[in-house]
Amino acid sequence: MPDIFMFEKPIGMRDTLPDLFRLKESVRSRMVKETKLYGYRFLDTPSLEFYETVGQVSAIKDQQLFKLLDKEGHSLVLRPDMTSPIARMASSHLLREGNPLRMAYSANVFRAQEKEGGRLAEFEQFGVEMIGDKTLSADAEVLTLLISVLQAAGLSYYHITIGNIDFVQEVLLHYGETEERASTMRRYLFEKNYVGYREYVSELNLPEKSCQILNKLPELKGDEQVLDLALELTEQNVGSVALQELKELAYMLKKAGIDSHLSYDLSLVSHMDYYTGILFEVLGDHIGFPLGNGGRYNELYRNFGQDAAATGFGLRLDRIIEAIGQVDAEEPPLCLIYNDAQQFAAMEKAAVLRAEGKAVVTQNIAGIAELDTFTRNYKNISYMLDSDGLEAES
Amino acid sequence: MPDIFMFEKPIGMRDTLPDLFRLKESVRSRMVKETKLYGYRFLDTPSLEFYETVGQVSAIKDQQLFKLLDKEGHSLVLRPDMTSPIARMASSHLLREGNPLRMAYSANVFRAQEKEGGRLAEFEQFGVEMIGDKTLSADAEVLTLLISVLQAAGLSYYHITIGNIDFVQEVLLHYGETEERASTMRRYLFEKNYVGYREYVSELNLPEKSCQILNKLPELKGDEQVLDLALELTEQNVGSVALQELKELAYMLKKAGIDSHLSYDLSLVSHMDYYTGILFEVLGDHIGFPLGNGGRYNELYRNFGQDAAATGFGLRLDRIIEAIGQVDAEEPPLCLIYNDAQQFAAMEKAAVLRAEGKAVVTQNIAGIAELDTFTRNYKNISYMLDSDGLEAES
Repeated sequence: MPDIFMFEKPIGMRDTLPDLFRLKESVRSRMVKETKLYGYRFLDTPSLEFYETVGQVSAIKDQQLFKLLDKEGHSLVLRPDMTSPIARMASSHLLREGNPLRMAYSANVFRAQEKEGGRLAEFEQFGVEMIGDKTLSADAEVLTLLISVLQAAGLSYYHITIGNIDFVQEVLLHYGETEERASTMRRYLFEKNYVGYREYVSELNLPEKSCQILNKLPELKGDEQVLDLALELTEQNVGSVALQELKELAYMLKKAGIDSHLSYDLSLVSHMDYYTGILFEVLGDHIGFPLGNGGRYNELYRNFGQDAAATGFGLRLDRIIEAIGQVDAEEPPLCLIYNDAQQFAAMEKAAVLRAEGKAVVTQNIAGIAELDTFTRNYKNISYMLDSDGLEAES
Repeated sequence: MPDIFMFEKPIGMRDTLPDLFRLKESVRSRMVKETKLYGYRFLDTPSLEFYETVGQVSAIKDQQLFKLLDKEGHSLVLRPDMTSPIARMASSHLLREGNPLRMAYSANVFRAQEKEGGRLAEFEQFGVEMIGDKTLSADAEVLTLLISVLQAAGLSYYHITIGNIDFVQEVLLHYGETEERASTMRRYLFEKNYVGYREYVSELNLPEKSCQILNKLPELKGDEQVLDLALELTEQNVGSVALQELKELAYMLKKAGIDSHLSYDLSLVSHMDYYTGILFEVLGDHIGFPLGNGGRYNELYRNFGQDAAATGFGLRLDRIIEAIGQVDAEEPPLCLIYNDAQQFAAMEKAAVLRAEGKAVVTQNIAGIAELDTFTRNYKNISYMLDSDGLEAES
């Protein structure tokens, strides 16, 4: 084994050292607590799923899947998301008479990465799924919960932009005239490459009015007034149901008192292609990528033989941690350094302190290679080194 | 997709439904809390490691490894244990001047299974590693912590059998005369196939005294008196250092007041071949398999260029859960069922209750397919269905 390779990890894989672990644990537990207050129940699914079922239903591109073969030659994937495994599980175990189900998770997902990107190939996703409820109240609930969870996480800034993929789709198809063009424009919008988008639109030789409307689309961003602007801009039948839905949702969210964290973006397109209506993206401060996203997906359950409307969100815990950046100072453990003669006295003292809930490290001085560097790890050190049963404290 | 396959999971993979998730969460959190009282710090490593490094260092057989290739053609494995990834990580990041390090984890590990076995291919392991301390105090600390953790988990019965692989090895080699025979006898002992072991011994045509001692070996089980019995049985130089070590450890554990949970087994052999001295196995009630195991491994760190003595334990959370079998009843959430006219009143009421720490499900009645079956999930239901802003409770 070459020396350097020996300590290496596969592309996109990271160790979680104790300080980071503690930060994750503390942020996650606040998010979990908040989610439980809304009556959502946490669950978990296996890391490995069949490629033919969950692997293909997930919205993650094939080249980003980690694939392997089991002993019987079936193709497996490391789960690339949690929405499709939960759909598999809910469809076989939990859905009853199509009644609403509230599920939550905080679990690692896997996406194979290129060496150059520096992106994580394994990260923890925190999310909820509200399954079996097609009302707008369900969308409002998921967004209200999302705000509560972001607040509980301890983020100083977060913002949610809401769109409707039906609106984008109808506008692009109606004014672009073919599905092929709509699909190309959607890709530009997803990449937020508005220059490329407008260049492409201008090359299409469309009627002037169509051109105007398509060019306006990326500007339809801001508070709920953009919903009225959009209604004026487009013809009555184009995307109007989707806009009406957004208006009703905006009203609910205003009544819920969370509108200061929200804005609307009528050209919002997701990399998840299973969304069927309202969708949204969560943005943080100083972070180049969204903290998460979500929306309504009313067709996904058909892959598992169920007719169940659903909505939910997924947040990247790593990015939330990055945005928060620090954790409250940890109460440092007391360190009792003893010699053989004092071992049992040290054990007894430690047991008493631990029973009071205090963390205590007990360390035989004979096991320490370098006392100076060892003691640097502890702020609070007590020495028990006498040979006659009496103790001396530093 | 065939209907039945659609809901299937790969061999040995399980879903964790909400009740089981809650039980795991509650048991794990008690174990974590106890471990932190001993000053151990939790960490995590990636699910995927290089086969050539961590995969080969781990004591798990090659055919039990889940292998895959990354985009650059490197062979990867899903981590089969946590001891080797932590050794990789501690060797590159954490070890300083060889001073003692106290690390803990609760993480999923992976072992490929045959279809027939019904064994889990992914399960959570809870464990600690005490790295860089070669004293017996470190072994005593790990065993004391182990007892505390098992107690905190809520097990009504647990028992630890302690052995010393050096003793077994020296006796088998001295009286069996060749490494090949010692290795065969070790396999019988590992399988606890004592009939097969004795048949094999009788076929070897060894001197009568050797035969006698080898046949006695599996009977050297019980309280610390077996250590003296063993000293009398074997010749002075055979395994006596290992026995002396066990006697000192037994004294420490007695002083720590935990000897009622312990016994000694001088033929104990582990499936983990990296143990180098004291080793142990954790047994529970009504469970066909050990709850976990542990011991000293002073050679493993050489694979990562370090000379560090180490000791630790690993417990299978799934088996501990199985042994515990139940969880305290959960405070059921209040369910507020409202209609459109009462939505905002319901939201307000829920917000007040959640601020008091009470879990509340809010549900628009229009989103419920079958009211009868939906309400069966909640013990405490309140209806807000008036059209005039007044509320009616059930």
